[in-house]
Amino acid sequence: MNRFEKQINFIIEIDKLKNVFRQSLVTKSLRNENDAEHSWHLCMMAILLEEYAPYGTDILKSIKMILIHDLVEIYAGDTYLYDEDKNNTKAKREEDAAKKLYGMLDKEQGEYLCKLWHEFDEAKTKEAIFANILDRLQPMLLNYFTDGVAWKKHSISQKQVIEKGNFVFEKANNNIKSLRDEIIKKSVEKGYLLP
Amino acid sequence: MNRFEKQINFIIEIDKLKNVFRQSLVTKSLRNENDAEHSWHLCMMAILLEEYAPYGTDILKSIKMILIHDLVEIYAGDTYLYDEDKNNTKAKREEDAAKKLYGMLDKEQGEYLCKLWHEFDEAKTKEAIFANILDRLQPMLLNYFTDGVAWKKHSISQKQVIEKGNFVFEKANNNIKSLRDEIIKKSVEKGYLLP
Repeated sequence: MNRFEKQINFIIEIDKLKNVFRQSLVTKSLRNENDAEHSWHLCMMAILLEEYAPYGTDILKSIKMILIHDLVEIYAGDTYLYDEDKNNTKAKREEDAAKKLYGMLDKEQGEYLCKLWHEFDEAKTKEAIFANILDRLQPMLLNYFTDGVAWKKHSISQKQVIEKGNFVFEKANNNIKSLRDEIIKKSVEKGYLLP
Repeated sequence: MNRFEKQINFIIEIDKLKNVFRQSLVTKSLRNENDAEHSWHLCMMAILLEEYAPYGTDILKSIKMILIHDLVEIYAGDTYLYDEDKNNTKAKREEDAAKKLYGMLDKEQGEYLCKLWHEFDEAKTKEAIFANILDRLQPMLLNYFTDGVAWKKHSISQKQVIEKGNFVFEKANNNIKSLRDEIIKKSVEKGYLLP
């Protein structure tokens, strides 16, 4: 199979991301969101909120990370942020998935994307920090605007939300930090999050 | 409302794109694809197939166009490529939608995105040509890999597919052109498209 054929096969394979469902609900229809929609929404946030990214962020790189950040879930499944058991086995399951998925592409291209995914996961570079901030902020927005259904279902507390997000939000721009604080505060008041 | 609040409101409003359904089916679950998923898939194609874009294409600009290219459909609805009646009223409906949607943002940012959408629609610049090629290729791939259900449902012919795509495919790289020709040829053989 030549390089182009591998790329097209990969494009068909990743269509499956549209069937990987998350815990967050989409507004209006109140059904579970899937990873493809989630990734599109994060990319939109990246271009709309680019001015709040860390100074000097290569926004194209952030967008590439966002586009691929959940691809491994096609094989590894979605791991809910607050599911401690599943999070213990997440790294191994996702590494296996990455090997299988990116192995479909030519070595050079597969390795490039796999490295980009690792960079996102480590959340250390500017691009990865910005992408991770959006990845934490977006489900908070959806939760808030769907009356906290997903949080209430899993009895999530304010403390959990803060703890899981701190490592990236402490590097976020003040507008984003304040928004996050406000969502948490109002969500506790409205009973979406346990105090 | 300040600039940031407008941006966040816009981010919530465009969540509705996940409820705008297209004629194409997604593979595996065989349900209709929505615009958010479609836009993500096109962006993935843009980063995977960047090497086949016209020489000198600003890929970030193409991606921005792709991300927003269907946003007007939140109010204007999806217009099936082969629905001649609906296509006659499309421009007016979408202009009204753009005014309403991009008017939610600060003037400068709203105008920038609206201009970008027009550039996509005109399909004249390199970035817009590449984005439009992907926008035509992706539903052909989905149709082909879902046994032509959507094409058969609407009795679409080979001629229609060729005519609707020619204005961009004539500017496409040879790999992409050949792929398109092959999909059409095989789709006729398999009875997905009328000869």
